[in-house]
Amino acid sequence: MGSPDFVHRSRCAIAGIGHTDYSKDSGRSELTLATEASLSALVDAGLSARAVDGIICCQDDLVRPNSLAESLGVVDLTYIGSNGPGGTAPCSQVGQAVGAILSGQASTVLIYRTLNGRSGRRYGMAPPGIDGREVGGMGTFDEYFFPYGFFTPAHAYAMLARRHMIQYGTTSEQLGAYAVTARARANANPDAIMYTIPLTLEEYLTAPVIADPLRRFDCAMENDGACALVVTSTARARDLRQPAAIIRAVAFGSGSEPQPGILYPYLTRSDITTTPSVHTAQTLYARAGLGPDDIHVAQFYDCFTISALVQVEDYGFCKKGEGGPFAEDGGIDLCGRLPINTSGGHLSESYINGITHLLEGVRQVRGISTGQVPGAETCLVASGPPAATGAVVLTVDR
Amino acid sequence: MGSPDFVHRSRCAIAGIGHTDYSKDSGRSELTLATEASLSALVDAGLSARAVDGIICCQDDLVRPNSLAESLGVVDLTYIGSNGPGGTAPCSQVGQAVGAILSGQASTVLIYRTLNGRSGRRYGMAPPGIDGREVGGMGTFDEYFFPYGFFTPAHAYAMLARRHMIQYGTTSEQLGAYAVTARARANANPDAIMYTIPLTLEEYLTAPVIADPLRRFDCAMENDGACALVVTSTARARDLRQPAAIIRAVAFGSGSEPQPGILYPYLTRSDITTTPSVHTAQTLYARAGLGPDDIHVAQFYDCFTISALVQVEDYGFCKKGEGGPFAEDGGIDLCGRLPINTSGGHLSESYINGITHLLEGVRQVRGISTGQVPGAETCLVASGPPAATGAVVLTVDR
Repeated sequence: MGSPDFVHRSRCAIAGIGHTDYSKDSGRSELTLATEASLSALVDAGLSARAVDGIICCQDDLVRPNSLAESLGVVDLTYIGSNGPGGTAPCSQVGQAVGAILSGQASTVLIYRTLNGRSGRRYGMAPPGIDGREVGGMGTFDEYFFPYGFFTPAHAYAMLARRHMIQYGTTSEQLGAYAVTARARANANPDAIMYTIPLTLEEYLTAPVIADPLRRFDCAMENDGACALVVTSTARARDLRQPAAIIRAVAFGSGSEPQPGILYPYLTRSDITTTPSVHTAQTLYARAGLGPDDIHVAQFYDCFTISALVQVEDYGFCKKGEGGPFAEDGGIDLCGRLPINTSGGHLSESYINGITHLLEGVRQVRGISTGQVPGAETCLVASGPPAATGAVVLTVDR
Repeated sequence: MGSPDFVHRSRCAIAGIGHTDYSKDSGRSELTLATEASLSALVDAGLSARAVDGIICCQDDLVRPNSLAESLGVVDLTYIGSNGPGGTAPCSQVGQAVGAILSGQASTVLIYRTLNGRSGRRYGMAPPGIDGREVGGMGTFDEYFFPYGFFTPAHAYAMLARRHMIQYGTTSEQLGAYAVTARARANANPDAIMYTIPLTLEEYLTAPVIADPLRRFDCAMENDGACALVVTSTARARDLRQPAAIIRAVAFGSGSEPQPGILYPYLTRSDITTTPSVHTAQTLYARAGLGPDDIHVAQFYDCFTISALVQVEDYGFCKKGEGGPFAEDGGIDLCGRLPINTSGGHLSESYINGITHLLEGVRQVRGISTGQVPGAETCLVASGPPAATGAVVLTVDR
């Protein structure tokens, strides 16, 4: 795994990215959104839909690869697949694409996620009926948690946040430091939902409590939109329109506690503030032949403030428990040790279940982000903990 | 694609297979069934659960890879994924495993499918409520079909069967020839649900009509059970307990009409009796460097008699429309040109959404099937049409 020539290292690349507008009411179907985002990604890469021969979805997506293929006019798929659940999907979708390409099963793989997350089913709502999968709920072992009032992800992450406070002295001001920093990035990004709306720490601290200790601005937005990416071999990407965003390495890690869902891990893990991302990190860095010191910028899954800070720790950018001070002391700012979520993240750009972070990772290594980190040559992108999840290191093409 | 050294050709293998008992009421959860089948496959391969680092599920499975990992005691997953929907999954799960292994993302991949298809949710039932995904219905665009009385797969495949009769003169006796042949295979297989129950053509023809022209014994059973397989590199498989079943090639094909679901294709395809399997076949044979003449035995997805016969045609073993006479004239018998579904198939062994066919493919190239084709060195296994789907060629290790 740590060999100097790890088998997939830098052999595939992201050649195109695309997204729809992000809104609170798209006024169109998930299929229309996915089609728009996919066409945008293909145009970005300089490819037609006929070039696509693989499509990989998030398993929770309402749009199946076949439907998207038909909508796009893809003429001969030779690979389809899916990953998930939910926010754990995007980096694993990239991993699956790398496998499909390197094993000769596809040459040009489209990855997408489409979500009418506000005008359609809302992840932040408690379920109206017994079927937690349809609206609200966390979809896994809900029957064990609903009787205790755990209806939404906010309830689950509140426990993580509170425990982190008890164990490490993390404060609301430190969580707020992340929310305010992410908002500043969104205020520079015209595509972000919060582009024109600033956020001060005082506003953060005086906002209503959603699930103690999480306040309104600790929580990801609910919004509509879709994103897509084109993955191909590095050799082919070099012939396409954009500079190749090289997939230096991709990894998934579970450790010995690969529990499903968001709440379930809390029942059994000895340490709920450390996520399986520590295992993902170990595998990822070994495959990449890089360590935290080599990473210039990162995009962490920020369904809540606390999940971003925990990943700063679990991917090795500060000691365990020091994510709060790291954020408060400017470590995540554009000029800090590790700028994160440079387009505004899930709190302030758009919540599309983690795929927006991959797009921003590509922008960083292309050098075109509205929150560009000067000279960034490597970007770590991680999908959503605390469930076992994946991550990717993207680099410039050197 | 047709190069003499196609990139994944024969580089991976199936090293272990396992299944639970097949029954009408398992009396245990899907997770318990999946765990039993997985442990059985691992024992078969001579591996412990600690060797597993990848798990790929059918996206419709009620058991997630994380849950199975926890149940088995898998200590560090480095890959998870899913494929589907439904019966299209198994061969694509193999394809995804091949990609994960060859790209260095996993070394030992567990594939499974677990289904309480009779005691739990029944695919053959019309839905009690509006949510067709939960019980009955076909899960895709149901809202367009329910108003016309199309509630179950039998309604969908009846149209395929009737059209095949109109277009090619296929008869009930020819459909029955497949049902009777499959039952004879099951009568030799002690694990088959229909092991002790013979079926004559007369019994077939006088059974109740389910959805004209489909009768009771045209339809897959509903039953409980689980299956699992272990995929690894060919090099590693050679060090394990069983003779390696070499994955000569794997493919997926959609053609230009990659429509989702079972019924939807009928709305738009110019020729509903030809499935996307013709595209899968083309890619598969090119990758394998083999053609129909090189295939000694096949396992075709037989959710209904007609789907098995259409695949005999679409994979090139007879001319289009001649599947009926091919079956009636003994072409699918053990001593015929192409013995198929040699353990009894979905009609008479067990319906676990196509994965049983992969297990039987492995048994054939190991030479241990209860319906063994003497000297069989190659077995084609195909997942479920008429949706776009995948297929695999397994060979003995020469």
